[in-house]
Amino acid sequence: MAFLLAQLGAHAAERITERLKVIHLSPAHIGLLRVIATSPGQSQQAVAERVGVHPSRIVALIDDLEREGFVERRRNRDDRRLYALHPTPGEKMREIAAIAAAHEHDICAALSPDERAQLRELLARMARQQGLTPGVHSGYRRLGEGGPRRRRDDAAS
Amino acid sequence: MAFLLAQLGAHAAERITERLKVIHLSPAHIGLLRVIATSPGQSQQAVAERVGVHPSRIVALIDDLEREGFVERRRNRDDRRLYALHPTPGEKMREIAAIAAAHEHDICAALSPDERAQLRELLARMARQQGLTPGVHSGYRRLGEGGPRRRRDDAAS
Repeated sequence: MAFLLAQLGAHAAERITERLKVIHLSPAHIGLLRVIATSPGQSQQAVAERVGVHPSRIVALIDDLEREGFVERRRNRDDRRLYALHPTPGEKMREIAAIAAAHEHDICAALSPDERAQLRELLARMARQQGLTPGVHSGYRRLGEGGPRRRRDDAAS
Repeated sequence: MAFLLAQLGAHAAERITERLKVIHLSPAHIGLLRVIATSPGQSQQAVAERVGVHPSRIVALIDDLEREGFVERRRNRDDRRLYALHPTPGEKMREIAAIAAAHEHDICAALSPDERAQLRELLARMARQQGLTPGVHSGYRRLGEGGPRRRRDDAAS
């Protein structure tokens, strides 16, 4: 079972990595974006801490998100040295939602809606018991170790 | 759901990688060993092909397994240039079985026996529908890309 999980998990990570290349992002970018969208206005430091990305990598990842139009850096009103991160609303976010939906549809194709709900419940219970933070992939932690050239391919493998 | 799978799968892969360090093996070694044990007497080439490990990596991986006492290379009777691979029976295999059982127990701790059976059935169905080969982790394919120093840590991450 643990092997099946690792095998399917790696497969899912590879498939979403492939899909995200179309919009020049990696799974790690999406992880960051999710945290930024959930609570707009956070600092880079806060976001880095939340998802466990090494501080040395966060700036480049946010640069990517800004360049591709998914995120905006605004000066913090109270401390002009700091940036507050805001998601860019509209079409860009819909692009990601469409990619995520297609990925989900593909990976779960073998299961009925009831079975998907059942599987989700079992996996969520396991993740909680194992002490995993919702939305945070352990691969994010390793992002500080590789250079920028390796980053995209390694993100959540 | 696909994210939960990737998250839990990476977590399971990390945990088993940690556990296997005690016996100086990686998940990739175990994948090879499983194939060797299932059908003793195969050539290195056949095993490499079966698990999708790059031919340039197979020799070093088998070297590791032989050095640690898990596998024996015997000359092929028909063609003395070839080696036939045989698992070493006994205590060594029981060590691995104990590690695998402890890992399984840990990862599935949140679930009842019935729920484990249910989860296994759902995951197996998904893996089949996705065209995954039983027992073969996609991480094995990437083993040819890193050097020997990186191999152990990267194996099934």
